[in-house]
Amino acid sequence: MKAEIIAVGSELLTPDNIDTNSLYLTQRLNEAGCEVHLKTVVGDSRADIAGVLRAAMMRSDLIIFSGGLGPTEDDLTREAVAAVLERPLSMDEATLEILRQRFAARGFRMAKVNERQAEVIRGAEILDNPLGTAPGMWIEETGRYIVLLPGPPRELKSIFEGIVPRVQSLAGGSRLVTRSFHVTGITESELDSQIAPIYTMFPQVRTTILAGTRHIAVRMYRWTNAGDDPSDIGELAEKIQAKLGDAIFTATGESMEEVVGRLLKESGQTLAVAESCTAGMLGMYITRVPGSSEYFKGGILCYSNEAKIELCGVGAELLQRHGAVSAEVAEALAAGVRKVFRSSIGVSITGIAGPGGGSPEKPVGLVYIGISDGSRALSRHRIMPGDRETIRERSSYLALSWLRRLLCEIRPDYGDSH
Amino acid sequence: MKAEIIAVGSELLTPDNIDTNSLYLTQRLNEAGCEVHLKTVVGDSRADIAGVLRAAMMRSDLIIFSGGLGPTEDDLTREAVAAVLERPLSMDEATLEILRQRFAARGFRMAKVNERQAEVIRGAEILDNPLGTAPGMWIEETGRYIVLLPGPPRELKSIFEGIVPRVQSLAGGSRLVTRSFHVTGITESELDSQIAPIYTMFPQVRTTILAGTRHIAVRMYRWTNAGDDPSDIGELAEKIQAKLGDAIFTATGESMEEVVGRLLKESGQTLAVAESCTAGMLGMYITRVPGSSEYFKGGILCYSNEAKIELCGVGAELLQRHGAVSAEVAEALAAGVRKVFRSSIGVSITGIAGPGGGSPEKPVGLVYIGISDGSRALSRHRIMPGDRETIRERSSYLALSWLRRLLCEIRPDYGDSH
Repeated sequence: MKAEIIAVGSELLTPDNIDTNSLYLTQRLNEAGCEVHLKTVVGDSRADIAGVLRAAMMRSDLIIFSGGLGPTEDDLTREAVAAVLERPLSMDEATLEILRQRFAARGFRMAKVNERQAEVIRGAEILDNPLGTAPGMWIEETGRYIVLLPGPPRELKSIFEGIVPRVQSLAGGSRLVTRSFHVTGITESELDSQIAPIYTMFPQVRTTILAGTRHIAVRMYRWTNAGDDPSDIGELAEKIQAKLGDAIFTATGESMEEVVGRLLKESGQTLAVAESCTAGMLGMYITRVPGSSEYFKGGILCYSNEAKIELCGVGAELLQRHGAVSAEVAEALAAGVRKVFRSSIGVSITGIAGPGGGSPEKPVGLVYIGISDGSRALSRHRIMPGDRETIRERSSYLALSWLRRLLCEIRPDYGDSH
Repeated sequence: MKAEIIAVGSELLTPDNIDTNSLYLTQRLNEAGCEVHLKTVVGDSRADIAGVLRAAMMRSDLIIFSGGLGPTEDDLTREAVAAVLERPLSMDEATLEILRQRFAARGFRMAKVNERQAEVIRGAEILDNPLGTAPGMWIEETGRYIVLLPGPPRELKSIFEGIVPRVQSLAGGSRLVTRSFHVTGITESELDSQIAPIYTMFPQVRTTILAGTRHIAVRMYRWTNAGDDPSDIGELAEKIQAKLGDAIFTATGESMEEVVGRLLKESGQTLAVAESCTAGMLGMYITRVPGSSEYFKGGILCYSNEAKIELCGVGAELLQRHGAVSAEVAEALAAGVRKVFRSSIGVSITGIAGPGGGSPEKPVGLVYIGISDGSRALSRHRIMPGDRETIRERSSYLALSWLRRLLCEIRPDYGDSH
């Protein structure tokens, strides 16, 4: 089944914004057995939206719109689609009531303009949007399917997940079989040179390597039809897994903080953090995981030297002698915060995120990570590339990644830059 | 002049890749006086490339292709464009010679397959590609312009920079004038109902309202031609500014944390934070700003009750009586952390980010924000919509937004959900 995606919104035609919903949609469509053969970004223009829809109806079985369902004058998707299909738009009382209740639940009176969001194209099935105000729509038109989804990613995802099963059944037996590994502690080129001899032996499976700020993803995928034997992808995945071993931190899409959380829970250990240059980012990552209060005791944002001394118990003389960005202080911070929170493990980050504050001996990007488990305090340093925010992200991630290795009781040999 | 961008390449239709060349192209096209009104991503399919070009020729003055100019069977842009224009493709001997020389200079003999890259559409002007092998093309067709550029970003940019002047002269002195406001403390629909009576009086200026998780952006832009007086955009901006007043936190694109940082610096005040459910996100936001160490003293991630009591000085009895998510505890946390860090101001966040932990009296999304400046401790609560991460983001942002209002000595009436 051939699908195409149309993102609506003039903001997506500026130099500052890009349509990223289509990445999520493509993944889910592929998994449901649909190939995405075209994507369009169109502005808030009735004529352009209509023109693109007309073309799409000539070439695609499933047409997915994102955006343009809001309450304002600019939100034209509903009207343009209704016009092309020559169907009337009318107020749906049930949807209107849901909207009113949702506003009321938050203590607001719904403004008149929001009523537009309850307008429905005749014959469309309404897709409820529990996370927002604009409902989605599912429309069948002469054997083709048109889906209208709101632009905010969370709303779009929550609605789309609900229709994945019907997309899957429309796609018949064809499906995309995928496997993926998330890898850390190795560079992209090293990774490729390790696994290229393996994946080139499986030319029918497409293998891609994509390096992000946080980790490298190895993805394997192939289309299969009913009756095909896709076992070769499993064979390939096994060989790659055997080769990469511990460098793979997940084969199921778990985030690093989820892996760390699971390992902490499994071992009955708790964690506290002392953050200098990241100033909360590590704590924020760890607590993204629901239920993290089971193992995360808290932390100290020791942005100043006083805080390092007074709250984390770092000796003033130690600080004076080695400087705030040093192995000694990283270790003292980890040990100190562990004591303060009476946790099993303490982790610290201290570094120079820039753009100012660097020196020839301690350049921007120099970051120390400390870990203390009571019996010992360790530290590692790295000079991170990138701008201030990238350095902070990489530092927080490296702390998690190192903690994972420690919790797995893997030798602390962190390879290189991931 | 209306431009559209067509990116060619099946890899741009996977869940892992996105066309980012169009961001660069959009910026340069806008600067040269062209509006980008549509973008398409199309796979390596002759029919799809041809179909999109046909549609583009009906609606755009300038059509820019990126990608699909390589040497392989998959590279179909040249052929598809030639077919639509009904012009022959033929080998250009001069281009072939340049290609051969470029390979020779790198010590390679050119493979036969590379000869395809010297095929030129009749009547096209060749745009030399000093950084790669696929030259670009500039084609004029019945008053429209079609540009073929290679996909690798460096090559695309180097060729496009060379044609910016002619694009500019085709656009004939037109340029994009923009203004924007970032607004907080008001819903999207309320904002629209306040300013719609103003912006509808300026139909020649395009005004858009875009709500994000953090704030709402009001953008005004209009294309002007040489000799046009664009002062109406300034007039519109002034009227909107007068209407929205303090709800506008920046007219220059400053982030909320930058505004807060500037206000703290200007008033010589310092800040400390106590974060429960956000567990570092507020500190992380504040310290995104280079130089934030001037006013940010640090914080405590008081994820557990013990941390609230022992580190932030909240009374155990107070906690027991009101619960961790309460006005009383929010105020005590703000006052406590202010004392611990000896800062001018303390800010706290305590709430239920979910998905678990809610109750009928204290539902998921209930968040208290406390602020203490030594003379008084205040708090506000809000029930935030969305999932765990959205609730945390909105909470951190609301804390910043409220702090800004306090620092501006605006009455603490925070309207509603932003």
